Amino acid sequence: MRRINVKRVLVGEPLDTARLGETLLPKRLALPIFCSDPLSSVAYATEEILLILALGGVALLHLTWYAAAAIVFLLVVVVASYRQTCYAYPGGGGAYIVSSENLGQNAALTAASALLVDYVLTVAVSVVSGVAAITSAIPALEDHAVGLSAAFVAVLTLMNLRGVRESGRVFALPTYGFILVIYLMFAVAAVRIAGGATIRAESADLPLHAVSSYTGFAVVLLAMRAFASGCTALTGVEAISNGVPAFRRPKSRNAATTLAMMGFFSITMFAGITTLAMVYQVHVAEDPTELGLAPGTPTSTALAQIGRATFGDLHFLFYLLQAVTAGVLILAANTAFNGFPTLASILARDRYAPRQLYNRGDRLVYSNGVLLLALAAVALIVAFDAELTRLIQLYIIGVFVSFTLSQSGMVRHWGRELASPGTPRGERVHIHRRRAINAVGAAMTAVVLVVVLVTKFTHGAWLVVIAMPLLFLGMKGVRRHYDTVAQQVAVPSGVRPRKPVRHHVLVLVAAVHAPTLKALGFAQALRPDSLTALTVAADEEEAHRLRQAWADHDPGVSLRILHSPYREVVAPVLAQVDELAEEDPEAMLSVVIPEYVVGHWWEQPLHNQNALRLKARLLFTPGVAVIDVPYLLESARDGSAAGS
Amino acid sequence: MRRINVKRVLVGEPLDTARLGETLLPKRLALPIFCSDPLSSVAYATEEILLILALGGVALLHLTWYAAAAIVFLLVVVVASYRQTCYAYPGGGGAYIVSSENLGQNAALTAASALLVDYVLTVAVSVVSGVAAITSAIPALEDHAVGLSAAFVAVLTLMNLRGVRESGRVFALPTYGFILVIYLMFAVAAVRIAGGATIRAESADLPLHAVSSYTGFAVVLLAMRAFASGCTALTGVEAISNGVPAFRRPKSRNAATTLAMMGFFSITMFAGITTLAMVYQVHVAEDPTELGLAPGTPTSTALAQIGRATFGDLHFLFYLLQAVTAGVLILAANTAFNGFPTLASILARDRYAPRQLYNRGDRLVYSNGVLLLALAAVALIVAFDAELTRLIQLYIIGVFVSFTLSQSGMVRHWGRELASPGTPRGERVHIHRRRAINAVGAAMTAVVLVVVLVTKFTHGAWLVVIAMPLLFLGMKGVRRHYDTVAQQVAVPSGVRPRKPVRHHVLVLVAAVHAPTLKALGFAQALRPDSLTALTVAADEEEAHRLRQAWADHDPGVSLRILHSPYREVVAPVLAQVDELAEEDPEAMLSVVIPEYVVGHWWEQPLHNQNALRLKARLLFTPGVAVIDVPYLLESARDGSAAGS
Repeated sequence: MRRINVKRVLVGEPLDTARLGETLLPKRLALPIFCSDPLSSVAYATEEILLILALGGVALLHLTWYAAAAIVFLLVVVVASYRQTCYAYPGGGGAYIVSSENLGQNAALTAASALLVDYVLTVAVSVVSGVAAITSAIPALEDHAVGLSAAFVAVLTLMNLRGVRESGRVFALPTYGFILVIYLMFAVAAVRIAGGATIRAESADLPLHAVSSYTGFAVVLLAMRAFASGCTALTGVEAISNGVPAFRRPKSRNAATTLAMMGFFSITMFAGITTLAMVYQVHVAEDPTELGLAPGTPTSTALAQIGRATFGDLHFLFYLLQAVTAGVLILAANTAFNGFPTLASILARDRYAPRQLYNRGDRLVYSNGVLLLALAAVALIVAFDAELTRLIQLYIIGVFVSFTLSQSGMVRHWGRELASPGTPRGERVHIHRRRAINAVGAAMTAVVLVVVLVTKFTHGAWLVVIAMPLLFLGMKGVRRHYDTVAQQVAVPSGVRPRKPVRHHVLVLVAAVHAPTLKALGFAQALRPDSLTALTVAADEEEAHRLRQAWADHDPGVSLRILHSPYREVVAPVLAQVDELAEEDPEAMLSVVIPEYVVGHWWEQPLHNQNALRLKARLLFTPGVAVIDVPYLLESARDGSAAGS
Repeated sequence: MRRINVKRVLVGEPLDTARLGETLLPKRLALPIFCSDPLSSVAYATEEILLILALGGVALLHLTWYAAAAIVFLLVVVVASYRQTCYAYPGGGGAYIVSSENLGQNAALTAASALLVDYVLTVAVSVVSGVAAITSAIPALEDHAVGLSAAFVAVLTLMNLRGVRESGRVFALPTYGFILVIYLMFAVAAVRIAGGATIRAESADLPLHAVSSYTGFAVVLLAMRAFASGCTALTGVEAISNGVPAFRRPKSRNAATTLAMMGFFSITMFAGITTLAMVYQVHVAEDPTELGLAPGTPTSTALAQIGRATFGDLHFLFYLLQAVTAGVLILAANTAFNGFPTLASILARDRYAPRQLYNRGDRLVYSNGVLLLALAAVALIVAFDAELTRLIQLYIIGVFVSFTLSQSGMVRHWGRELASPGTPRGERVHIHRRRAINAVGAAMTAVVLVVVLVTKFTHGAWLVVIAMPLLFLGMKGVRRHYDTVAQQVAVPSGVRPRKPVRHHVLVLVAAVHAPTLKALGFAQALRPDSLTALTVAADEEEAHRLRQAWADHDPGVSLRILHSPYREVVAPVLAQVDELAEEDPEAMLSVVIPEYVVGHWWEQPLHNQNALRLKARLLFTPGVAVIDVPYLLESARDGSAAGS
């Protein structure tokens, strides 16, 4: 019987490990894979600034210029800083590795916690924002935002389980399409404005009431909050430095060049979109009633409003814009699907995370990490009802924690290189420059981290401030556990295996049939010091029947019958095992369990339930080994693939 | 460390099997336990008639009288018919057993499918209807109907996991309270009407538009549909005949008396409520807009309207009515919690259902059956969004299938008694009478089954018409599977266990540490014909390290190292096992797996993942036994309770 294997259809045939080299990325594929996150965040960064400043009414909207300028400056600094990391760590310089090598394990684990949290948020925020781009074009779908978001995460998960190379091709189109359509939009806007047109957003005439009046220091705080929200534009910049080993040679230079390209695209698009939003007077608010609309009125994203106003009658270009925006945003989540499992694998290698996250699956990707990330992201999306502005509040803190640690680590790294007598004199001047760049980066990101913490804490960021230490402690706990175990199982050199002095064997008998006879024969072959068959009977009649059948087959082994009026099997057998173990504590006791093996997985629950429960309990009984003697039923003989 | 066991707190300490006798029920407790279903259905049966007739407008409402009269007549017939079953089957005469003994296994399985479906629907319909009684009194809760319903199912599940006796006490109060308050309502209504008052329902003045105009045969069909919906009043009548063994002695007479009491209460309450609904001119409709109300306007159930109109200013009596109605309805679901697990256990005994449903749990109830029922009911409630009228469409078909089969089986039963020469002459006249009663019952319920099928099929009942044959085939399949297995494992008399000619042992080595040395010592104690240690190394460096450690401990066993660049363990080991098994197909091959046992269940996922996957695959390899040699870590030594 030919079985259709669902896993194979979905994720493809297993790949040979020798093909790992083939999956190295050229720059043109690396850009969409690693940069869809920072590039796509320009789709919502401007809007998040406007949303915060809207709380202060129309009068404060001009502060957008300052917030945006600060973000552009910050982008330049951070990109420059991370370019240094690409050169210093050709093997991949994620915040975890850089912190670990230069600042110690606690800093490294702090960075790891921050990164893990932010990878999950990258998936949640990007996908939800992509769905918002779709619902801006098709308002009827707004009620299904949660379901749509979860479906997109599922699609991403499958794509990533197929492997990194194929993912790159899928991602190239929407990422480059997004860049092209945004620049096309700038061009159309420039031509129309130069031609004398006055373009206004659909929301330009909507009133924007200040929620409360802000004066003096409160204005500064609001501007800082707007800046903090806009900093989403910076998320994902570190992905390239993490992923240097995935680049083609020369890895470091290719990675640094890709990073610079990304910075250029990101800055120009962000600046352009923000400028158009200001010129068109886009008004946005979290609640449509603040704009004088009825509750529940569907509203468009700021970018959708800009696109609709710019393209005017060229409707197909507006829909194209929304399509590529949705595409790049949903695929931006892929940055995390590359980063999270890799980081988890490194953590598992260092025994800070469960071992299962270490190994690659049969498609050469870290399957367990991919699944874990997907589950966490869907949980967040459901818990936050796919509301972007609430999710954004959790975002960025982790990013800036890892930025700050990573850049500080780089400063220390260059300092060591300078201190090393082996560094050639000609190099030193470059190293001084690199260290200066990283020092500026570290200082800037540290300041921004404080701003983000202060302005976002009460708006939801406290959740992350709780989650990160919990992750930190969890990883420490896992490491402590593995260390303790390693210590407990270590044996001094020269110790040889010790044979148990005696070996008693107990064969569990459910009925006198072929599996039992097979297990008995096997048990006899073990040549134990004693051999007992053990069975459970509900009443005397059943006991009598069992005794007769036993005599009939004359196995040369005595049958002990335990009485259990309701056929409870586990407790009486365990009691018997405990008794035997106590009788001869120096001996080894083996419990032989005859098991049926059926041909179909769905037949399995019809059998062996008592055996399963018994085995789980026997594991915890000292000095008892469990021996499964499987008996293959005919239907299972040709079905050995069923276990795959 | 003292562990708090959540299961014990929720369901109580385990009961000794000797206490099963104590749980026999006196009539006063048996009535609420077995009759809350048929009694409580009067809370919605009238409304379901009115809802159907409302489709024809005010002009057709008078047909309610005819539908109600037919239902009362049917109740008398069915109760009389089932009383005969109580006498004929003191050991419990459910439709399954009666059909099985008199009509053969196919009829019995048809009855079982019908009953299983209807038990699930009893839970769903009763609980949803109970929640409707609550939301009629507290309209603000209407949005939470699904959540409330699920919560009530959860509470019932816990109560039933505690055991049948304690349940009886809890159920007595709302059941008797319901009966009393309904009769009190009749008395108040009689006094007020006798005093000249004209009582009208709140909805009496609402217009009732005919959805379409019905004439001639269409009117008859609509009346039949109304009758079919009202037949919900009959559900659960069979519960007593099923539960005869739970009664105190004389079991049969006590059960028959309880059944008659139930019939009296049921008929009088149903007739009274229907009369008041007609006198008060209660108007109900599925959609509030048909009553000229705004969409989404909360509406009260018919019974709530009657109560509100009758009690007038005596508000507390209205709230009491709603409270006891909700109480009895939610507890009505308990009938199914008694019936479903018992039937499932009988089916499991006859090997038509998985073995796990056979045994009682440690509180002497069929825990698995209880959980299965609860899960199915919650799934239905969620899928149907807790909408009573849609759920009702699925109901009753199963009931009348089992009624018809059960009564037909009884006719055959009495026929056999008459044919038996041993039946005393004096008895014969009684048996003729009993057979006549059952024959009338069978004929009536068969006719009603056809009516119900015809009128409900397109309104949702097709789902049940699909589900029942699927269950039927599923049960047949389970039986066929168990039969095939039994046949395959049977051994001819006199066959003795056969020792394998040779025994090869393979010890899996992950690292050279204490668990490995223990497993090696154990393997040596088995005195195999060959003993090999097998390990997996990612690279030559690791292989070298392993070889050195091996030499250091000098176990006297050769170590075979498999190369696996990505540490994939399962596939190479399986290949090696297959190779060895092929080399000597007559021998038995044992794979010894050293396992860590940790102290806490949450530590378990940190270990043994490869061992687990390997064991699952090895089960399907013919001639290979798996030997777990657990190594208890220190933290596990005092934690043997962790597996409970």
